[in-house]
Amino acid sequence: MSQKTKTAEILCVGTELLMGNTVNTNATAIARGLAEAGLNLYHQTVVGDNPQRLREAVELALSRADMVITTGGLGPTYDDLTKETIAGTLGRKLLPHEESQRWVEEYFRRVGRTPCPNNQKQAMMPEGAVVFQNHNGTAPGCAVTGTGRWEGKTAILLPGPPRECEPMFREQVLPYLRRDSGTRLVSRCLYFYGIGESDLAHRLDRLMRESKNPTVAPYCKPGEVMLRLTARVEEGEDPGPILDPVVEEIRREAGEWLYGVNVGNLQTALVHTLLAKGLTVATAESCTGGLVAQRITSVPGASSVFQWGVVTYSCETKRKLLGVSQKTLDSYGAVSPQTAMAMARRARVKSGADIGISVTGNAGPEPSEGKPVGLVYVGLDSENVTLAEELHIQTMEDGGREYIREMAASRALYLALKAAKQRVK
Amino acid sequence: MSQKTKTAEILCVGTELLMGNTVNTNATAIARGLAEAGLNLYHQTVVGDNPQRLREAVELALSRADMVITTGGLGPTYDDLTKETIAGTLGRKLLPHEESQRWVEEYFRRVGRTPCPNNQKQAMMPEGAVVFQNHNGTAPGCAVTGTGRWEGKTAILLPGPPRECEPMFREQVLPYLRRDSGTRLVSRCLYFYGIGESDLAHRLDRLMRESKNPTVAPYCKPGEVMLRLTARVEEGEDPGPILDPVVEEIRREAGEWLYGVNVGNLQTALVHTLLAKGLTVATAESCTGGLVAQRITSVPGASSVFQWGVVTYSCETKRKLLGVSQKTLDSYGAVSPQTAMAMARRARVKSGADIGISVTGNAGPEPSEGKPVGLVYVGLDSENVTLAEELHIQTMEDGGREYIREMAASRALYLALKAAKQRVK
Repeated sequence: MSQKTKTAEILCVGTELLMGNTVNTNATAIARGLAEAGLNLYHQTVVGDNPQRLREAVELALSRADMVITTGGLGPTYDDLTKETIAGTLGRKLLPHEESQRWVEEYFRRVGRTPCPNNQKQAMMPEGAVVFQNHNGTAPGCAVTGTGRWEGKTAILLPGPPRECEPMFREQVLPYLRRDSGTRLVSRCLYFYGIGESDLAHRLDRLMRESKNPTVAPYCKPGEVMLRLTARVEEGEDPGPILDPVVEEIRREAGEWLYGVNVGNLQTALVHTLLAKGLTVATAESCTGGLVAQRITSVPGASSVFQWGVVTYSCETKRKLLGVSQKTLDSYGAVSPQTAMAMARRARVKSGADIGISVTGNAGPEPSEGKPVGLVYVGLDSENVTLAEELHIQTMEDGGREYIREMAASRALYLALKAAKQRVK
Repeated sequence: MSQKTKTAEILCVGTELLMGNTVNTNATAIARGLAEAGLNLYHQTVVGDNPQRLREAVELALSRADMVITTGGLGPTYDDLTKETIAGTLGRKLLPHEESQRWVEEYFRRVGRTPCPNNQKQAMMPEGAVVFQNHNGTAPGCAVTGTGRWEGKTAILLPGPPRECEPMFREQVLPYLRRDSGTRLVSRCLYFYGIGESDLAHRLDRLMRESKNPTVAPYCKPGEVMLRLTARVEEGEDPGPILDPVVEEIRREAGEWLYGVNVGNLQTALVHTLLAKGLTVATAESCTGGLVAQRITSVPGASSVFQWGVVTYSCETKRKLLGVSQKTLDSYGAVSPQTAMAMARRARVKSGADIGISVTGNAGPEPSEGKPVGLVYVGLDSENVTLAEELHIQTMEDGGREYIREMAASRALYLALKAAKQRVK
């Protein structure tokens, strides 16, 4: 770590971003890459296609950071002004760039279109720039250093469309940035289910406050918390001695709720556990309407562990398609622990899978058959266990239906994961 | 419209946003809402959970604009500092807010958890603030005006999680902002399937360029385009005479691809059409793994039109659970138009529904049984039609699996919608 860690800023240019017509996924992708490359990042900004505000934003960014990475405004039309504005700010002339001219011509030949005169503008580059080829469009990117007041500062210009920007950043800009950094960041992600963020933060209070290397940061989604541990190490250094003791400490304090490390989410943890143990799962869903099956099958490789799922909304289909007995349905009702267990058992028996999971409940918007919105039973049937859990999922807004379904599906996936971990085949 | 148009800035606070762990959908939602409310927006900024940089960002925003809208940093933990920092910047004390205390207690009682001492902090509010209740979490939002140097400037603080932030913004902040504007905006959303954005924009070029009232703005999602027409009218004025002629013009130019007005999405259009006609639908899915069923059942009221769906990944389950003949599977393979049609037909016959839809194909990541990634067949079976469509869904990136599944599911929903519109029961 001989050199001082450099600081970058992200500046996204485009009226469509500013006005909310497009979600800013470029900023997300670039921010992740900068973290991996070990650069500091303290600000992201969005401005519209306005040269005056763009110039001010570039000057502000370069006054605070070593470099600014921009996206957008490299297109062929009159309101694409990023290159002209930044070259002007940094005191660099725009010159025709022969290689870029050839790329643009080649690109148009390949897609069978004719370049218009405006495309010439895209092959003009700031004097002395490192040029990045665009494999997915006509606008090359570039890195250009400043003169005068901005001596020693760098601007990196990338195109706006994510399918042009993200590959260019990953394949060309990241290697350019890593060339002289010397350190890197390594992350480990710990996934928790069944504990709230504030409770987890309370248990790990000292660690989260005081740990600097690795840093420990929580991220929430409904029903789950992820902790990201990030260590800064020298190029070639093993991050284990920095990360392992902290992971162990977290296991001691909150291991009960930890369901995996670097697993991504519940469905991926489930599919990978089933694959590792040679087990299979089947689903029978009522109020989640296919969501459990959809989440399992979103994981590549799911076809080896999941081959069978049914969506049975009515009592009739629970009986006919799944084989739940009329007696169970009559005695306890469709939304009951008995029906949830019967659905899970029938799914397992009928499919020949090792584990059957089921969901039945009321996701709203109205109470149904005397069952309140948010009352859900999740069932599990495995070789040596049959159980049902009663959930009361509380929500107050219109989007509550999707929330109830997501929470119920997560619980079903979690039960299946626990059962799969306990089983030996 | 006597008053000068006000300018707002968006300032999103959170290290997880800054580092790219979360996509900034809040900024998108708020930006759209501000545009609809007729406010100017020239800058969006993201900073981490750092009080010094947050303070600087607030001061910069308020020096350029009339108000700043922040998201994030209202949680219970030590690094949630937005309220404290902004109250300090604006010269406002934090005081206990009784109503918020009651909301927080009520929220915890409802979700069956115990508040920790940190939750007290969430019920502290800046002196004189307008408080926005949080229907989906524990952190209330607020609007607070400045004192001294920031006299006449406003900060609006919203929670970070999108399911808390977006409803609060839409239901409470937008009415707060509109309160003294005197005009209102009325939107009509037109939904298109099967036409690309650039093709639609080309057909409606003059209208999209020139129309000022209503404004016409396109929004894209995979396989679909939505046009939002927004008219500005005086309080009490009927927006019909402004909106209707433009809707008619769009119908003339692109009515072929228009599948609904204000319908929200394909699955909602389908469920509402089925409800209106007293029809039912059943699904049989392979590569979409329950996604079609899940999208249909996400619509409130779906239980009346959808009672039956299966996920059959393997040939064996297609045969046993659904009853597709061994001969069809042997002769044509699982990924074939014949199997897609047989799946749709069996789903309809077995369930007794009016319409059966099916999806079978390869969503990747690897070619399977000689079928390339992205080759999908969508089947439809109705009283007087059985058909299968072959899709080649192209994708270049790693996230391709989900994209292929979404595109295939959309096509199946679209076919069902077309069939439902044509049928009379």
